Order: sequence, then structure tokens, then C-alpha cells
Amino acid sequence: MKTKTRWIKYILTFGVVLFVFHSTIFSAPDEGMWTFDNPPLKLLNDRYNFIPTQEWLDHVRLSSVRFNNGGSGSFVSPTGLVLTNHHVALDQLQKVSTSQKDYVQDGFYAATPAEEMKCPDLELNVLMSLENVTDRVFSVIKKGMSDQEIYAARKAEIAKIEKESLEKTTLRSDVVPLYDGGEYWLYRYKKYTEVRLVFAPEVQIAFYGGDPDNFTFPRYDLDMAIFRVYEDGKPVVSTQYLKWNSKGAADGDLVFVSGNPGYTARLNTMAEIEKDRDYTYPLILKILKRRLEVLKRYAALGPEQARQASNMIFYYENSVKALTGEYNGLLDKNLIAKKQKEETDFQTRVNSKPEWKSEFGGVWNTIAEIQKKHSENMTKIRYRAIRGSQFAQLALDIVRYVTEIQKPDGKRLEGFHDSQLESLRYDLLSPAPIYLQLEETMFADALRESLEQLGPDDPFVKTILGTRTPEEAAKDLFTGTKLADPKVRKALIEGGEKVVDESTDPLIAMAQKVDPILRELRKWIEDHLDSQMKIAGEKLGKARFAIYGKSVNPDATFTLRLSYGAVKGYPMNGTIAPSKTTFYGLYDRASSFDMKQPFNLPARYLERKEKLDLSTPLNFVCSCDIIGGNSGSPVINRDGELVGLIFDGNIESLVGNFIYSDETNRAVAVHSAAMIEALRKLYDAGKLADELEGKSK
Amino acid sequence: MKTKTRWIKYILTFGVVLFVFHSTIFSAPDEGMWTFDNPPLKLLNDRYNFIPTQEWLDHVRLSSVRFNNGGSGSFVSPTGLVLTNHHVALDQLQKVSTSQKDYVQDGFYAATPAEEMKCPDLELNVLMSLENVTDRVFSVIKKGMSDQEIYAARKAEIAKIEKESLEKTTLRSDVVPLYDGGEYWLYRYKKYTEVRLVFAPEVQIAFYGGDPDNFTFPRYDLDMAIFRVYEDGKPVVSTQYLKWNSKGAADGDLVFVSGNPGYTARLNTMAEIEKDRDYTYPLILKILKRRLEVLKRYAALGPEQARQASNMIFYYENSVKALTGEYNGLLDKNLIAKKQKEETDFQTRVNSKPEWKSEFGGVWNTIAEIQKKHSENMTKIRYRAIRGSQFAQLALDIVRYVTEIQKPDGKRLEGFHDSQLESLRYDLLSPAPIYLQLEETMFADALRESLEQLGPDDPFVKTILGTRTPEEAAKDLFTGTKLADPKVRKALIEGGEKVVDESTDPLIAMAQKVDPILRELRKWIEDHLDSQMKIAGEKLGKARFAIYGKSVNPDATFTLRLSYGAVKGYPMNGTIAPSKTTFYGLYDRASSFDMKQPFNLPARYLERKEKLDLSTPLNFVCSCDIIGGNSGSPVINRDGELVGLIFDGNIESLVGNFIYSDETNRAVAVHSAAMIEALRKLYDAGKLADELEGKSK
Repeated sequence: MKTKTRWIKYILTFGVVLFVFHSTIFSAPDEGMWTFDNPPLKLLNDRYNFIPTQEWLDHVRLSSVRFNNGGSGSFVSPTGLVLTNHHVALDQLQKVSTSQKDYVQDGFYAATPAEEMKCPDLELNVLMSLENVTDRVFSVIKKGMSDQEIYAARKAEIAKIEKESLEKTTLRSDVVPLYDGGEYWLYRYKKYTEVRLVFAPEVQIAFYGGDPDNFTFPRYDLDMAIFRVYEDGKPVVSTQYLKWNSKGAADGDLVFVSGNPGYTARLNTMAEIEKDRDYTYPLILKILKRRLEVLKRYAALGPEQARQASNMIFYYENSVKALTGEYNGLLDKNLIAKKQKEETDFQTRVNSKPEWKSEFGGVWNTIAEIQKKHSENMTKIRYRAIRGSQFAQLALDIVRYVTEIQKPDGKRLEGFHDSQLESLRYDLLSPAPIYLQLEETMFADALRESLEQLGPDDPFVKTILGTRTPEEAAKDLFTGTKLADPKVRKALIEGGEKVVDESTDPLIAMAQKVDPILRELRKWIEDHLDSQMKIAGEKLGKARFAIYGKSVNPDATFTLRLSYGAVKGYPMNGTIAPSKTTFYGLYDRASSFDMKQPFNLPARYLERKEKLDLSTPLNFVCSCDIIGGNSGSPVINRDGELVGLIFDGNIESLVGNFIYSDETNRAVAVHSAAMIEALRKLYDAGKLADELEGKSK
Repeated sequence: MKTKTRWIKYILTFGVVLFVFHSTIFSAPDEGMWTFDNPPLKLLNDRYNFIPTQEWLDHVRLSSVRFNNGGSGSFVSPTGLVLTNHHVALDQLQKVSTSQKDYVQDGFYAATPAEEMKCPDLELNVLMSLENVTDRVFSVIKKGMSDQEIYAARKAEIAKIEKESLEKTTLRSDVVPLYDGGEYWLYRYKKYTEVRLVFAPEVQIAFYGGDPDNFTFPRYDLDMAIFRVYEDGKPVVSTQYLKWNSKGAADGDLVFVSGNPGYTARLNTMAEIEKDRDYTYPLILKILKRRLEVLKRYAALGPEQARQASNMIFYYENSVKALTGEYNGLLDKNLIAKKQKEETDFQTRVNSKPEWKSEFGGVWNTIAEIQKKHSENMTKIRYRAIRGSQFAQLALDIVRYVTEIQKPDGKRLEGFHDSQLESLRYDLLSPAPIYLQLEETMFADALRESLEQLGPDDPFVKTILGTRTPEEAAKDLFTGTKLADPKVRKALIEGGEKVVDESTDPLIAMAQKVDPILRELRKWIEDHLDSQMKIAGEKLGKARFAIYGKSVNPDATFTLRLSYGAVKGYPMNGTIAPSKTTFYGLYDRASSFDMKQPFNLPARYLERKEKLDLSTPLNFVCSCDIIGGNSGSPVINRDGELVGLIFDGNIESLVGNFIYSDETNRAVAVHSAAMIEALRKLYDAGKLADELEGKSK
């Protein structure tokens, strides 16, 4: 995917998410990210003559892992080994690296348990149970309530459900709206935070081909990393894990992907699509490209700066390429015509029954009006925000934390509910290094951009800058702050509102000053956009439910989903792409580019080439329907065994945000055979390979 | 190209060519197929800091060879070795093959001179001199002549020039209109017909990847064949030949292609483009696809039928893919908008000067009217023709031959001028095998198609069929004919009109009956379309000359041209294509498709894999501007050495018929190193490799 964090950081970067989730109506063959309570049994039986048993489904679900930094993974041994992508592990790798030892560049392998390396702030979740709580969530709605009242009442009830569940089960408990709020489900997760790194290859081979090859196929990436999960200092005994099948899947085989797709908008209304096309995408791409330029200038200052910026450059390049692909999809007149036809058909069905027409018929106009309001205020919403610096955001989170936790759960800002606090504290107190020079540079440019867009009299801009230039302000803030020390952050959080109020830390002071302005904006967004959109979206969801039932699958919500499809090639560039590549192809691409960046190979790939069986499959594609957040998901065969590791989608899949086509949309995975071949022949990690293949204890 | 014969067979298949040639005005970087009298010296100096000397140009021209079956080639040794593509040699390979020995499938290598195999009917031309005869051609035009009179007078003068030159020099002499008839040049060729086959690999590796990979890159084809040219039973001593450079060209290097591009329509008017888009392409594609189906059904009858049909299946699949690419180009709104802008700019310039406006201003309307007439009569023109069977066409040629040669040269049908007769006789008397069952099948279907399109009362249809069905008619014609015997053909040709008139051969009788009908149609075409279009095209050519001079290059005419460009990759499929591939890539593609057709490898490639240096470059691309007819052209470096062998264009180049873009348009070539590596390591042809590399005498 190279987008593990795309959608989630998207939220972080831009502060607000104003999309509603709509489910898809017109499923293409192999389309769908299905919830585990509603797997497409009939489709699977009709198309592939396979009906998964409940046991099979439970086995897959309990073997699947969500990485809370935005990816997916799976248990692959009874000894706590978890497989995911290198790019999902990347932020952890960078956090444990220093200017002396760069695990991103050099890779890492713990040959003994003692060498396994603690991750600073990684949280993994396993979905233990799913419970339909729709009736309870809807029960709070009383006749005559306004949209805002409904929104608030439901928010409070959801917080209550989550809190009760947490107290009762001690499991992380999230109420998840599905089918545009047509249903609400309580998802309970077992949470693991004691995670150690076992293996990661060099970034050069994990992300082979760099930005050019990102989101494309044929591909030659060993985008893998292996962690081990501990509890109380000991490896967990994972009773549910995927058996490793080194043969992989053959051309035409049915396979499944179990993971956490982040976000799709497959049934957004035309009004939303047009807003995205005409406002959201152009604006976001402009911001991202500017940010990327700043990062590249910073990286050019020296090798240490380059190291510090590499992860973010990766993220921004990845985002620009992905969003450009989505944007191009929106500019495609055929796609737009298809979406328009879907909407017209849906409307025709709604209007065909008087009671549907009166209940749902007006919803498209309502949504169009909300979109118009959003477009008109988009500049303010996007630029009046803490942007560019994760560290400045952290200061704001601390300021809000001490205030919010004093309120009743239902009244708090999103992100500060009881059930979310432990994870939040874990993030706020992360000992991971912070690069102040980088943060200052990024924050200064983001401020300058806000100044350019909003003008000097905007309260947000004025409050931060005063009489200073953006660069002067950023320098003051980042030179003076002591927040880099986790102990300082801990003292603030534990000290509460009074200690925070008295803090002279410039970032904390800044955050306190802008917090009211940002809250006011957020309030406006909630009242005028979010709550109205939520109600309208629900109406649409209900209409869809009434007409299509649960034969459709809900849009992605970064919760566990099951996709299915076949291993198969596709028409590409005037010819056909095969369903897999081999190590031969890796050496072809390297030789074809005369070993030039980003097509160079780590030294061991040249020194040990003769050891490899070059015909070993390296990457492969399948028609399973995935999207950002699925990175690191296992590819699973009929027998519930692991045959591959999702790490990307092809260029044709980038429109998947809006539309899926099994003709060309493909998920790209590392082949199980390639991982074993590389571990044994290139990394002297035969012991780990044995553990994965079940040949040792 | 895999289109060597595309444009030329196109003419054969459809009987008439009604395109005018226009030169291009707005040259993109690296655009242009330049005549050797007018190389782009300034462009080359500005862009690549290289000015070819006259000696360099003569060396390249005299080393270049035209294959009269529609391709190009070059002398590559002082001992008469000529290098071209396997697919240019394909029809010869098929003609020397039998049901016992299939050189197409198995390849061929003559380890000794005695084993070199005579080709039945191959003619090679070397361009010995170029002479501007524009003034003489124009001198026959008198004030007050009608378009038809001008056309006839000029035709007669051209025939006279050719005849005089032939008699004077004994060289094949062709008057070639360039710049839409803005200039006329006398091209004199040395002609070689004693040609023997030295080497050809298996078709499976020459055309690796088959129809799917055709016209695409990255590519892994050894599309080569080597002939030796003889005179009087001895190898010619070629004083001019290209020295073989096995290092090849590096990424970014300036390279040249010297060959015979067949046909381009880069500056057709919008009226012509729209006619092609709306009438010509849909109709031709319909015909070709139908023909392909018939061929495939025939090939399915058995292995011998499959062998017989393979060359034509290749040709038709190739044509369908190529024409579909061109057609898609015409459907591309951006391309059309660009062409429209070019035309508008041109018109604006014409209208900016009163004398230009009065002389040239009306020409676009004239052309539009002719195109309209053409479109309205297209069905008749296309279907009232001998189609499907080369053998039936041969009968018609014999009937016409004996009549035409009795007329003065200037009054004859095109193809029957004195200067063309030797080549024509060579074709008519070819001892190459003719597959009567295949010919009958193809002719029957073509007749049925004409019946469907023209109806039973059409004189052409009625004359051939009488009361028979198309299948019955074809059966009668091909069962009874004795023309398969070259001696019978010879007797007819030498016997003259009387012998032909008395012949009871059913094909000859059929040809005699339909000839008047076809001549009448041809006369109508000449009077109403060709001659008018020729005059209008000339007017346009003059306008262009007046405004742009010879800074532009003329559209392709299957005469020798020089293209230039750089070895370089291009953006593709979301990533970048490298400038070359390697043998690694060949094995990757074969393994990726599990060695399935058409991605399987000849046995020696598996048995001898360990001998190969897999990092040897196999194919490469350059931005040289080429098109069908350039197949087999040498790729030449600054030092006038051979570094590669053109065999195809990428999928993006298919619109090159109408427009060139150096961003993505690429010529695809076999690398010089790959040919040597394969000859030495796979084919035990070290002796031939030594001869090519100049390591032996």
C-alpha cells in the first residue's frame, strides 16, 4: 500500500475529516471489504465453490492483528511472531535508530531472543468480539429532537457503551458505525503494547523501486517485517495463528485478505464527489507538494537531516502519488458517468415507493447544500489548524487532555473518551526521538502557508504570530520548549490543568492560546457540517438498507474486514501483467537501471546472488478488494494458511477509493516463498525461517 | 515493428490507397524522418552537439538496405552479411519450410557457406543516389490544364524519367513525391535478388511474448535474422557496411535509425482525420477481425494448417493491434484538439498574406469535399476488390501484365511501369509454395463479405458468383487452377495477351471477367478522388513550403530516412520504464507465466541458461521517430557503428501515424550485445559472431 498511514495521517495532518461513509450498492465481481459478522457466503459459494465455516472465520479473525499506527498484520507462529510490512514497521525502525545505527538503512535481525528490540510506542489490537448495538444507539433518539440534539445524545450513548464494556471486559471497546450509521457495532479488542522487533530487511529492498514503482506492478519488493508480541516480559503463546505455506498460491487460486482497510468513499453522492474533485483534492495536493518540497530542502542539508526526514518524505511522496491517482480517477469522465448512473438508479428506486420518497427523497439536496457550505469554508477549515509539526500537535493534545478528562465522557472531544485514554497517553508519553530542527522547519512553513491563505488578521494566525514572522515564531517555539523530554510531558499530564496553566513552555503557551479558536472552529464544523452530514448520511444508509439490505458491504472504517478474490494477472500497458514476479525480475530491473537509485540493491543481494533460486516467486497480485490500512494484511488460502503479505495496490487500484473493477484493480503481495528464500539464503536467518515454517519450536 | 508489412500489405489487401502525404509542421524534440539530402544538421548540433559529415551520411546511406517485402536492414560485414528482423525474414522462412522441416519453429543456422539457403523471392535495394527532379516534373504543367490533365501529364513525365534513368544506369529508378508533392526526387537503387539465409532463431524467441507483448516495452525479443547477399553465385564484397559495436549504446546516448518508414499522416487535414476516424478505421478493423477469425478456424484444423496460417495470423493480429492503437489515438480528444490547433494555426498564417490566401485559402474546403465523396463511396471501394487471396490477386496481375506492357509506359496502371516490371515478374514467378486450401477458404469468406455488403446485384459480386454461393465459387476457382506451378504462370506471361485470353484456368478466366469492372472503379477513383486529392495535397504542400520551408520533414514514403534521438526510458504505467531490458527479464517473464504460451522458451534457452551472462542487455528503446517499414533498421551511434536493430515501437508510439511525442514515443531495438551473446552461447554460432564482430575474415 505504501499507504498504511495515508488515510490516518491524513486525518492527523488536516485535523478534520468531513467525509461520510457510504456503502456500495453495485458490487463488481470480487468487490467488497466484508465484516466478519456478514461474510459473502453465497457469492463465495457461487463463484468459488467455497463456504468458510464459522471456525474458519474465527481462526482468521483471531489470527489478524491491527497496527494502531495505521496498518494490519497477523500472528504467524504459536510463539507470538507477527508479520507485517516494513513500511508499517518503518516509524518504529526510525524511532529505534540513531545517527550512529540506522536500522532503516541496514535492516535488523535478532538471532537470539535477547537481541529482540523493544518498540517504543507500538500498539497491536486483536478483534475478540463483535456485538450489534444499533438498537441501543438508536434508542436515545426521541421524536422532535433537532439534528444537533440527536448527534449529541447518540455521542453520549456511544461513549457510555464503550466505557461500560471497557470496565466489564478490560478490552479496548470501540463502537463502530457501519453502513453510514445504518448499524452500530461494539468491537472489543485485546491490546498488546509489549512488542519487540525480530526482523526487518534494508529499506532499499523493502521499498525497492522507491517512489516510481510505488503503487505499481510488476513489482519486486521484500516489504516485510517481523515482530514478536510479549506479555509480562514473555512471548505470548498465540493459540490462533496462520500456518505458513511456502508454496504460496497458484495462478487462479481463491485467496482471502483479512485486514483493516482505512477509508473508502464508494457511494458518496455526486455532490460530495464533485466537491472532492473541485475543491478537496486540488487543495490537499497543493499542500502536500509544498510540504514535500520543504522536506526535501531539509534533507539536502546533510546525511543526518536526510535520515530524519526520510520517513516523512516517504509518507508525503506516497500520499501525493496515491491522491493524484484518486484525483485522476475523479477527472475520468467515464468514472463520473458510472457514478452518476449509480446515483440516478438509486434515486429512481427511492422514488418508486411513496413512503421511501417522502422519507429519503430529499436527502441528496440536503447533502448538496452541506457540501456547498463545506466548499465555501474549506480554506478556513484547512489552514486554521496546527499543521506540519507532530510536536506542536502533541502540545495541543496535552492542553486538551487535562481539560477534557474533567468532563463527563459523553461531552468530551473525540479522541479523549475513557476508552481512548490509555492509547492516547501511550502516544503522548512516547520516548521516541523528536527532531526539533525538522519540526521547526515544517511548522514555520505551515504557518507561512496559513498566513498567505488566511491573511495576517485571521485570529489563528494573529494569535500565534503576534508581530513575528512565521520563521521567528517557529524558532521561538521550538528553541524554548522542553517537551522533547517525556518526563516533562508526564509531569504536565499528571499535574493537570493547574500545572499546565502555569507552564511557561512556549509550545504549551501557544497551544493554550489557540485552543479556544480551534475549538470554536470545530464547534462550527460539528454544528454546521458533521452533525448534519451524519444525519443525512444515516438517512441515505437507511434508504440503502431498505432497498438492498446487507447484500452490500459497508465502506471501510479501519476495522477488520475480509476480502476475497483470485490470484490473477490483468491487461496492462498494451499487454498482460502476469500474476507474479520472480527474483529474476528484481535483477532485471536493477541491471536495466544500471543499479542506479532507487533501483540499486543492498550489497548482500549482489554478494549472495548465486545462492538464490532466481525463479522463486517474489511478489504476486490478486483481485481482493483492499485499500490503505490493509498494508501488512495476510493473504490466506482456503485452508486458512498464510500464502502472502499485502503491501500495495497497483496504479489501477488508486481509484478504488471511489470504484472497484476486478478487470484491473489488484492487490500486490509479497509471496510466502520469497520471504523464506530471502531469510534463509540472504539474511542467515534460517532459525527464524524454521520458526515460521513450523520446523522448529 | 511487427508491422514491417503492415502498411504495404494494407495496400495489397485493400487495393487502393487514398491518403495524401503531408509533411509535419510542428516538430516535437527528436521528431522527424529526414531525407538524406536534408538532414537536420542544426537540430543535431543544437541538441546533441553533433554534426554528421557528408562522408558519415554516405556511409550510413550506402550501408542501409531496403527489403522490398516491406522492411529495412543493413550490411554488417564486408562479406555481404545483412542484418534484419526475423519478422522481415518470416515470409521467406515460411516459403522455404515444408511440413517436414519448419524453419519458422526451429530456426536456422548455416555453419558453412554451402549450407546458406537460397531465398525464393527476396529483393533488396540500396539507395545509390538522390536527384531533385521537381522542375522537370512541374515543367509539363501548362496554364489552363484541368486537374485530370495535370495528373495525367505528370504521371507520363514521371514514367519517362524513370525509364530514361533505368536505361542509362541499369539501376532501379523511382520518382518519389515528397512534401506532398512539393518536391519530386529520383531515387536510384542497386538491386539484389540473390539472397541466402544464414541465421534465424526460433520464432518463439524472435517474437517472444507473441501478440500480447507485440508493440509494447519492456520487451525480450531476439527479433533478428541474418542473410548474405550474393552476386553471380559469390558473396558480394560490401565496401560500405556498419561496423558492429557489441557494447551498444548507453542510457542517454545519441543514436540514429536509418531505414524505410512506410507511411505517416502527420499533417493530414482535419477532414481527412475525421474521415479516417469515422469511416476508414472502423471499416478496416471490422474486415481484419473477420479475416483473423477465418484464419484461426483454419489453423484449428490441424498442425499443418496451423503452420500454413501462422504467418498470416501473425500479420493480422499485428495489424489489428497496430490499427487499434492508431484508432484509439484518433478517439483521443486531446490529440484531436492538438491537430485542430495545428490546422488553425496553419490556416491563420495562410490567411495573413493576401496572395497566400487567394492561392491556398480554399484548399481545406476542397479536401473536405473530396473526403466526403470518399466516405460516401467507401463501402463500394473497399468491397469491390479481389481480397483475401494473394493467389487470386496474382491471377489478376497476370491478366493485367499482358495488357499493360503493350501500352506506352506513361499510360499504364501503377505497378506496371518499365522500371517496376522486373520486380513484378520476380513476384509473379516466385516458386514459393501456395496453400490452395488456405487461399480458397480466405477467398470464399472475402467473397461472402462482399456479397453481404454490396448485395447480389453488384456487378463485381454477380460476375464472380453467377448462381453459385461464395463457397461454391471459391471451390471451383481453386480446385481447377493450375497456377500453383510457376511454369504455368511463366507460360502465360511470356505467351502474352493471346495465350492468356485462350487460357481455361478458372482463376485467369475470373480475373479477365472482373478486370473491366475493377478498372472502371479505379478510373472513377482516379478521376474523382486521387487526381483531385493529389492537386489539393500539392497546394497544401506548396503553402507549407512557402511558410515553413524545408525545416520540416516529409511524411514517410517507404524510402530511406534518417531519424535521430536518445537512448532513454519513459514514464509508463505509473512508474518509469528503463531504457533497456536484460536476459534476466526474459527468464522473469517466462517464470512469471509458468512457461505458458506465448511466454514459453525454446528448449536451448532452458538447457543452456547457465552459459549466459543474464545481465547482458537484450532490448532497448530510443526516442528515434520510426514507423512500420522501419523494421530491421540499424541503430547507429555517432561513429557510424551498429549498436542495435529496430524491431518495434512501444504501445505509446502507435499514434505516431498522426502525432509524435518524445515524452513517450519509443522505438524498440534488439541490443547488439544480446545478438552476439545468443549466437555464441546458445546457437553455437561463434563463427558467425566472429564474422560480425570483425574477429575473423
